[in-house]
Amino acid sequence: MNGAHSLLTTLVDAGVDVCFANPGTSEMHFVAALDTVDGMRGVLALFEGVATGAADGYARIAGGPAAVLLHLGPGLGNGLANLHNARRAHTPMIVVVGDHATYHKKYDAPLESDIDAVAGTVSGWVRRTLRPEDVAEDTMAALAAVRRGELATLILPADVSWTDGEAGAVQSAAASAQPAAAVDGDAVQAAAQALYSGEHTVLLIGGDATHGPGLAAAVRIGEATGATVLCETFPARLQRGAGVPAVDRLAYFAEAAAEQLAGARHLVLAGAASPVSFFAYPGKASDLVPDGCAVHLLAPHRGAADALRRLADNVAPGTTAPLAPPARPELPSGELTAFTAAAVIGALLPDDAIVVDESNTAGVGIAAATAGAPAHDLLTLTGGAIGYGLPAAIGAAIAAPDRPVLALQADGSAMYTISALWTHARENLDVTTVIFNNGAYDILRIELQRVGATSGTEPGPKARQLLDLSSPAIDFVQIAEGLGVPGRRVRTAEEFAAALADAFAEPGPHLIDALVPSLLG
Amino acid sequence: MNGAHSLLTTLVDAGVDVCFANPGTSEMHFVAALDTVDGMRGVLALFEGVATGAADGYARIAGGPAAVLLHLGPGLGNGLANLHNARRAHTPMIVVVGDHATYHKKYDAPLESDIDAVAGTVSGWVRRTLRPEDVAEDTMAALAAVRRGELATLILPADVSWTDGEAGAVQSAAASAQPAAAVDGDAVQAAAQALYSGEHTVLLIGGDATHGPGLAAAVRIGEATGATVLCETFPARLQRGAGVPAVDRLAYFAEAAAEQLAGARHLVLAGAASPVSFFAYPGKASDLVPDGCAVHLLAPHRGAADALRRLADNVAPGTTAPLAPPARPELPSGELTAFTAAAVIGALLPDDAIVVDESNTAGVGIAAATAGAPAHDLLTLTGGAIGYGLPAAIGAAIAAPDRPVLALQADGSAMYTISALWTHARENLDVTTVIFNNGAYDILRIELQRVGATSGTEPGPKARQLLDLSSPAIDFVQIAEGLGVPGRRVRTAEEFAAALADAFAEPGPHLIDALVPSLLG
Repeated sequence: MNGAHSLLTTLVDAGVDVCFANPGTSEMHFVAALDTVDGMRGVLALFEGVATGAADGYARIAGGPAAVLLHLGPGLGNGLANLHNARRAHTPMIVVVGDHATYHKKYDAPLESDIDAVAGTVSGWVRRTLRPEDVAEDTMAALAAVRRGELATLILPADVSWTDGEAGAVQSAAASAQPAAAVDGDAVQAAAQALYSGEHTVLLIGGDATHGPGLAAAVRIGEATGATVLCETFPARLQRGAGVPAVDRLAYFAEAAAEQLAGARHLVLAGAASPVSFFAYPGKASDLVPDGCAVHLLAPHRGAADALRRLADNVAPGTTAPLAPPARPELPSGELTAFTAAAVIGALLPDDAIVVDESNTAGVGIAAATAGAPAHDLLTLTGGAIGYGLPAAIGAAIAAPDRPVLALQADGSAMYTISALWTHARENLDVTTVIFNNGAYDILRIELQRVGATSGTEPGPKARQLLDLSSPAIDFVQIAEGLGVPGRRVRTAEEFAAALADAFAEPGPHLIDALVPSLLG
Repeated sequence: MNGAHSLLTTLVDAGVDVCFANPGTSEMHFVAALDTVDGMRGVLALFEGVATGAADGYARIAGGPAAVLLHLGPGLGNGLANLHNARRAHTPMIVVVGDHATYHKKYDAPLESDIDAVAGTVSGWVRRTLRPEDVAEDTMAALAAVRRGELATLILPADVSWTDGEAGAVQSAAASAQPAAAVDGDAVQAAAQALYSGEHTVLLIGGDATHGPGLAAAVRIGEATGATVLCETFPARLQRGAGVPAVDRLAYFAEAAAEQLAGARHLVLAGAASPVSFFAYPGKASDLVPDGCAVHLLAPHRGAADALRRLADNVAPGTTAPLAPPARPELPSGELTAFTAAAVIGALLPDDAIVVDESNTAGVGIAAATAGAPAHDLLTLTGGAIGYGLPAAIGAAIAAPDRPVLALQADGSAMYTISALWTHARENLDVTTVIFNNGAYDILRIELQRVGATSGTEPGPKARQLLDLSSPAIDFVQIAEGLGVPGRRVRTAEEFAAALADAFAEPGPHLIDALVPSLLG
């Protein structure tokens, strides 16, 4: 059994049966092994950032490890932005990077580069396997790291892939068992004291506490104690909608987030980091914790759900979590804006959808409009590296083929990984993509003012030009159809509603190019 | 003057007047400064890999430094593949990476990552500027590094951009003077001895010896001594065509390269690295230097032209370099294949063109068909990181607005940086893009067999599927038009000739989607 077979066999045995890939020459034995090892599905992406974003979306929905195959240092570089997002989401992911043959590296061939250094910036676990007989054990070690919440990178030289080796004994079952994160009793006690204090307390949830029992426990705690429960700004996976315990998200803009946190004397962190401003702004605080507010770390991202359940047993016995009532907006008519578009989405969102949200400024109305829509999972841009939405939708759709996926996508961000649409078509995924086409990097037009770069005056022509996407205007319908996805352009709320209803009614990929005005008018 | 102004002023004063950019919030003061500092042109790319590839193409043609502006670690990651190509081409380039404010970094905000580590993999010079008063001096140091042949990365925190500081005294003139590379007299002597030996000698040129006086000197040497003169496989910029001293390039496939080098007793390297196989293959040598062949390093990439001129004065006094005669293929008719397409290009290439070649397998006939076409510059994929061609065409066209640019582009590679077409349209660049659309990663279908991954049998269905781009077929005309570039699909040699003639006749960007069969049939 050569190294490539050993890798595939070990992954499949451990339950990893999908690999998002953009391979090159160094990975040809891996590609060939797909036909000789049963049970692995290879999903081709036309760009590595699509493959890594797809793997992230897959793991967030599947809950288990995702695998991605990349080609040498440049392939890893191309995949890096979405690996950054995955790192920030603590996504269980094994990244296999094919490398030159061990004996070939010293020749400094044109594609030679420092893979390890780049991998180290996103991976808690990096290993270069040097002998085919070590592949199985190294793969198991990578999977164990993944299950501890680290992103693992396994660098596989081409000759290790193609050479036969006797596999060492692998403790498959032991290595694959996920170690439970212990609940810290003292931290539970301190959080309980804060909640019992009668002082204004905010419970900020993230990590594994934004869905399922952790989310329910958090909302029970809020209900019983009066604490404000907030979700981190960019959760990896937030369950929400009718019948689900409801929480607001911490706002993106620091001013709005500061308002949500104002007056808090205690901040309890359950799976979330202490809140900081996304960017720094001249003369404004980066740390969003109010003066005089004590911060209590209940649990890091992993184990937050368990800690919250323990805390709820203490402070909220007998309390049940109130559930969001069903409520849909009326279908609006007339001009298509960020708000009427949101109402259309709220009115039409199908049951059990997965919503991937990279709508940025144009998404300003969506949270409110969908709060009472049928229950759904929301995936967000955890690491802030744009170009996440269309790839993540691939992974989500493959992880849950029976659920409709709605990708809400800003126009500028869409262009970083636009070739993802081709994989939507190739795999015939039930993904409806809505492009909010406002012809600008609208968020940057806002940020240009917020950072004071233009000293309160209007931006000059060169600055405006550098944030403008309207010359030429991008026609996402043509791009989508060029990549095999049927597209439709809409300009009114009625047209958008008709197109969205049609897309939801017909399985397979669709794209709606929704022309909306800039938030700045 | 704030740091952003200081940076722009220093760059403009040093003659750097174009900056390829994909900015974010941390770079808003740089963007605003474009309107307050005269003389800098900002060119927007919709993806960082387009910006870095454009900067590379620009510098290769302009000869002077290119500048590129990126946003934080993920932006650098997205730009990394084409920075890898630029590093391999020894392109003079300054990479400015905006970062979080100095005081903001400790908060580990979502976009925080290890920029320095990633930059170090492509840059010989990396510096993080911590005070606005240091920006000018650090920028001059970066430019000095660039002029020594290093790719320089300047990391600029947002608060250093927006804070005023008194600039230190900067030795502008001294720092900007390019130090001449000294010619190594002993190396010239050793090379001369080899050439006088009467034994079979190969002169392999690269670096600054593939155009202008260096190229002429190399061909004179070959003419006078009988040495075989070859150009490295992927030169940064090769001058060729009618009236230019002609050299063959070393072949990509190791078997063919080995044939070109067979029998050599001496290999003289002038600006080129000792030849190695691009990838390793089971049972085949990586080092392409024949047994018993002595390798003589005449000069590294910089200074190779000067060393060759000195060598030519020694071994080829009075000899003039023979020039390639004008010769164009007849316009072919019938089926459009890699070879008939090449003949069309050879027949129609306009005067003084810049050809950016990332045609991969479909380009197999182009070198021969254009050898006697009007003189042109050829830019190639130096580092092997695909997705280079469409971006590089941007930079070439901006560096030489009066020259027609022809981008020869494989379909698979095109999809890594397809949004470059939008910048072709936005800047109204005179770039004609030819997509060789064979519906496959054809090079990988060949490599799959060459690495022996399928043991001589036909690849299995999963392997074939992972290298196939035909399901769905990509319609590059629709994609181009969606991005503002007029497109036309051609299926015969006649249609291709008509479309190419029309594109050359009309200024501005055009795309031709040329359907060609796979080389594998």
